[in-house]
Amino acid sequence: MTVRPAASFAEIRALLPALPGPDRYAESKAAEREAQLTKPPGALGRLEVLTSWLCAWQGRHPPKLDRPRVAVFAGNHGVAARGVSAYPAAVTAQMVQNFIAGGAAINQLCRALDAELRVYEMNLERPTADFTLGPAMDEAECVHAMAYGMMAVEPGLDILCLGEMGIANTTSAAALCHALFGGRAADWVGPGTGVAGDGLRRKIDVVEAGAAHNRVAAGDPLGALAALGGRELAAITGAVLAARMGRVPVLLDGYTCTAAASVLHALRPDLLDHCQVGHCSAEPAHARLCERLGKRPILSLDMRLGEGTGAALAVVALKGAVACHTGMATFAEAGVSGKDG
Amino acid sequence: MTVRPAASFAEIRALLPALPGPDRYAESKAAEREAQLTKPPGALGRLEVLTSWLCAWQGRHPPKLDRPRVAVFAGNHGVAARGVSAYPAAVTAQMVQNFIAGGAAINQLCRALDAELRVYEMNLERPTADFTLGPAMDEAECVHAMAYGMMAVEPGLDILCLGEMGIANTTSAAALCHALFGGRAADWVGPGTGVAGDGLRRKIDVVEAGAAHNRVAAGDPLGALAALGGRELAAITGAVLAARMGRVPVLLDGYTCTAAASVLHALRPDLLDHCQVGHCSAEPAHARLCERLGKRPILSLDMRLGEGTGAALAVVALKGAVACHTGMATFAEAGVSGKDG
Repeated sequence: MTVRPAASFAEIRALLPALPGPDRYAESKAAEREAQLTKPPGALGRLEVLTSWLCAWQGRHPPKLDRPRVAVFAGNHGVAARGVSAYPAAVTAQMVQNFIAGGAAINQLCRALDAELRVYEMNLERPTADFTLGPAMDEAECVHAMAYGMMAVEPGLDILCLGEMGIANTTSAAALCHALFGGRAADWVGPGTGVAGDGLRRKIDVVEAGAAHNRVAAGDPLGALAALGGRELAAITGAVLAARMGRVPVLLDGYTCTAAASVLHALRPDLLDHCQVGHCSAEPAHARLCERLGKRPILSLDMRLGEGTGAALAVVALKGAVACHTGMATFAEAGVSGKDG
Repeated sequence: MTVRPAASFAEIRALLPALPGPDRYAESKAAEREAQLTKPPGALGRLEVLTSWLCAWQGRHPPKLDRPRVAVFAGNHGVAARGVSAYPAAVTAQMVQNFIAGGAAINQLCRALDAELRVYEMNLERPTADFTLGPAMDEAECVHAMAYGMMAVEPGLDILCLGEMGIANTTSAAALCHALFGGRAADWVGPGTGVAGDGLRRKIDVVEAGAAHNRVAAGDPLGALAALGGRELAAITGAVLAARMGRVPVLLDGYTCTAAASVLHALRPDLLDHCQVGHCSAEPAHARLCERLGKRPILSLDMRLGEGTGAALAVVALKGAVACHTGMATFAEAGVSGKDG
C-alpha cells in the first residue's frame, strides 16, 4: 500500500468511502478457536475481545504482534504564549532531544516492551498561530501535517501506538473537543502538565476565546482541526486514517491523542473502529471524550504524561491476548473435560 | 532466610510480631529520584505508586524486577460433589497436566512475560472434606498446606504472583469471605466457571450450609481457613506470609486467591501491605472483597480464569514502573527546563 500525500481536505474526504471495514471471516476463525481453548467460555474477558478485534482489523487469523511501533509527534503551539502550561514552550524541543537520547518515559517502555519508537519533530521552531486570534493553521498547513502523520504507517506493522509531545497541546485538545462535541469550555479543560487556580481559569478563557475567534461550521471537523489543533494533532489524525487504509490496528494514548483521532469520529463514527484507547488519562476530560466515542480504555493507571506511554503499556494486554489465543491447548489436545462434562 | 515449617496455628500466630514492615528509607530514595525525572510531578500516576511500594517491600532502591515467579497451587474440594461448578472435579488434575505440558493460559503469559512458573499439586487424589458436613480440614492439615505454600518463596525473588486451580474453589472462597466478613451468603457467591440459575442457587445454599455446620469463632481467621478453605487456599495464605518474612512483594490474582490472603488481613490488617491485587476479576464478589481490604486492583480486564493470570499480567505494570524509574533521565541530565521554568 502506498499512501499518496493528500493536498486538500476534499482529497482527504475522498479517501473515506474506499476504507476497508472489519474482516468478519478472520473474526469468525478467532471465535471458533477461542471456544476450544482450555478455559471456561469468556474467562479471558477483555483479552478475548482484543484478540477478535485484532483479527478483524489485521485481516487475518491467527493475529500477530511481532511488530509494534510507537509513533510520537511533537509540535509547538502559538497559544503557549498565553500561559496555559506549567512549562515553557522550549520544553517541547528539549523533550524531543530527550526522546532521541533515550531518556524519556516512552523510551523505557518501548525498550521493556520490545517496541520500535519513532519520533517526528514537526517544525518546532515555527509554532502554529495563536488560535485566540484566528485559525492555528490554514488548510494547506493542516493537510501537510496530516500527510506527514500518514508516513508513520507502513505495511507489515502489527499495531501502531500513537503519542504526542507539545507544550500547550491539552489546551488545543480542549478547544478541539469543545468545537466537535459542544458543552461548556470548562468541561474539556483540565490541569494538563499541572496548572491550577488562575492558570486553569486562564486555560478555560483561552479555549473560550478560541471558540469565539474560530466559528467552525458544524459538520466541518477538518476545519476545526486546522483552526484549533496543532501539527502533532493533525499528524495523529492522518496516521489513524492511514492505519485504517493499511489494515494496521491502532492504540490511542491520552487526551490530546484521542482528541486528534476524534476528528475522524466526527466525520463518520465508524472511522475509529480500528482503534482502541490504550489508557484512561488522569486528565479528567479524557474519560468524557472516551465515553463520547464509545471507547472503554484498556488500562487505567492514573497516568497523564502523553508521549504514547498509555498506548505502549496497553500493547502488553494485546501481547497477552495473542499469546493465549495462539499458544493455548484445546480441550481435545489437552484431554481436559469440557463444561458440564 | 529459612522458613521452618510451622506445626500449629499457635506457631503461625507466633510468627506475626517479628514480620518486617516497609523500608521507609528505600521509599524516600524513590521519592527523591522520582521528583527529578523528566516528566511533570505525578504524571506516571500509579506507576510511581508501584515503584515506591516495590522499594518499601523489597527493602531497596533502586527496585528490581528481574526475577518474577508465578506460583500456582492446585487442590480438590469435597464440596465439588454438591454440583457447584460447571466442570467435573477431574478437571483440576487435568488442568495440572495442562500446566505441566505448557498448554494453559498462564503458561502463555509467563512465556510472554519471561516469568518463572511453578505449579504445586496438593494431594489431588484426596479432596478436602465436604464443608457442608463439617470442617474441610483439621488444624494439622491446614497448617501443613500453609507450610507447603511457604516453600514457594525463596530469597532473591523480586515479585511473587499467586494463583490457584481447583474445581469448586470459588465456593470455598465465598464461604471463607462470608465467615470473615459477614453479610449474606449471596453477597459472596458468583458464577465461578459459569454456573447460573439453579446451579447458582445451589452454590448459595452450600455456602449457607457451610456456615451453619462450621460456626467459626469470631477472631479465629485461621480456624475459618481450615473449616471452609481448601489446600490451595491455605497454601496461598502461607505463601503470602512467607513472602512478607522474605521481603518479597506479592501480586494477588482473582477472587479465590484474594480470599485466601484475606485470612491474614483478618488476623491483622497491615499483614497485606506487601500485596497488591493484580487484576479485578469479573467474579462480582472480588470487587467487594478488594474494597473490604482497601485494595484497588492494578488491572481490570474482565478476566475470571484464576491460574494467576491476572497477577501475571500486572507484572507488566511493575516492569514499566521500574523501567521508567531506573532508566529515565533527570531534568539536569537531559537539559530540560523544570516546572514554571
